[in-house]
Amino acid sequence: MSPADTEPRQDGTARGRPRSEAVERAIIEGVMKLLEDGVPLAELSIERIARTAGVGKATIYRRWSGKEELFVDVMRAAEPPDPQLPGTSMRDDLVVLLEALRRRGLAGRTSAILHNVHAQMKSSPNLWAAYHDTVILPRRRLGLDVLRRGRENGELRADVDLELLNDIVVGPVLVRTLMRPDADLPDDLAERVVDTLLQGLRPVNG
Amino acid sequence: MSPADTEPRQDGTARGRPRSEAVERAIIEGVMKLLEDGVPLAELSIERIARTAGVGKATIYRRWSGKEELFVDVMRAAEPPDPQLPGTSMRDDLVVLLEALRRRGLAGRTSAILHNVHAQMKSSPNLWAAYHDTVILPRRRLGLDVLRRGRENGELRADVDLELLNDIVVGPVLVRTLMRPDADLPDDLAERVVDTLLQGLRPVNG
Repeated sequence: MSPADTEPRQDGTARGRPRSEAVERAIIEGVMKLLEDGVPLAELSIERIARTAGVGKATIYRRWSGKEELFVDVMRAAEPPDPQLPGTSMRDDLVVLLEALRRRGLAGRTSAILHNVHAQMKSSPNLWAAYHDTVILPRRRLGLDVLRRGRENGELRADVDLELLNDIVVGPVLVRTLMRPDADLPDDLAERVVDTLLQGLRPVNG
Repeated sequence: MSPADTEPRQDGTARGRPRSEAVERAIIEGVMKLLEDGVPLAELSIERIARTAGVGKATIYRRWSGKEELFVDVMRAAEPPDPQLPGTSMRDDLVVLLEALRRRGLAGRTSAILHNVHAQMKSSPNLWAAYHDTVILPRRRLGLDVLRRGRENGELRADVDLELLNDIVVGPVLVRTLMRPDADLPDDLAERVVDTLLQGLRPVNG
């Protein structure tokens, strides 16, 4: 058992004995392995997951209400952590956020979980909604906070809709990572997107 | 049989007798009905499709090499046609292109084919590649042509990467339509995106 087992959970609460954390991780890693091996989400039963993780079904049901709740935890565990923002300017923070998204996209090209399972999940409205609330929404909030600070410190025009602007900022990187698996994700993509958006598309003397 | 049956195919070639077009459409509409009824793509056999369309399996195999080729034609038939561009300015053409994408997104919220099947397709690399080549790529080319004309007539800065700019333009609308099923798609979304991009994000006196 590693020292991490005795640390509190990410949400700040401590649940059960340390041993329980190790079991939880074994179950989540068991599901990850099955998914990476190409087992479709729809074919993953609690029974199969229990067998893979070497635990009883009751052990799983004590922690998760069912497959969907477990899958959301698996997806969350597969996602890279949110980046640390430098806080030096809105421009720099946006570049760091987009760079994290670009790296997430690169990882998604080689990870069955981040690619196929992501796509399968969209067919299940409940699962997608849970994923949205636990993974996508916190990321969106991070972006909105950066834009809000930019508007307050004068880096950003005061008349733009921050929600729309957030979609404008992340849109091109998401299009390239999620919709066009063969699209170029060059090292300087984040910087180029942010600087193009800041400058605008009109000719300088236009 | 409607007069449209005797018209040449969209790709400009005429194939078979008019009757053959009607059969083709009956098969495609049969698949659409099954998909709209919620039958998963993976469960659609040529046999079931033939039964639904009231034709023999051989009739289907004479027209398509298999399920995947047929599905791509079904997806293409489900997609709205590309919009007519006004050609008055790059700005106006971009607004019309984005407005078509917004409407496609609204349609996708009530169409099982444009939503669920789209998601299922992404799990099949071959199918996704074929869909990409026949539906997404021509749309991208249309957008790139508009941007190229804008660069030539001075509406657009000369130093931007058109491929990247295309993703910047369509990104926010695709994020709202494909990734956030509950996101707002207001009537003026296309105009707001294009005008925000043209103007840039910096304060006017910044």
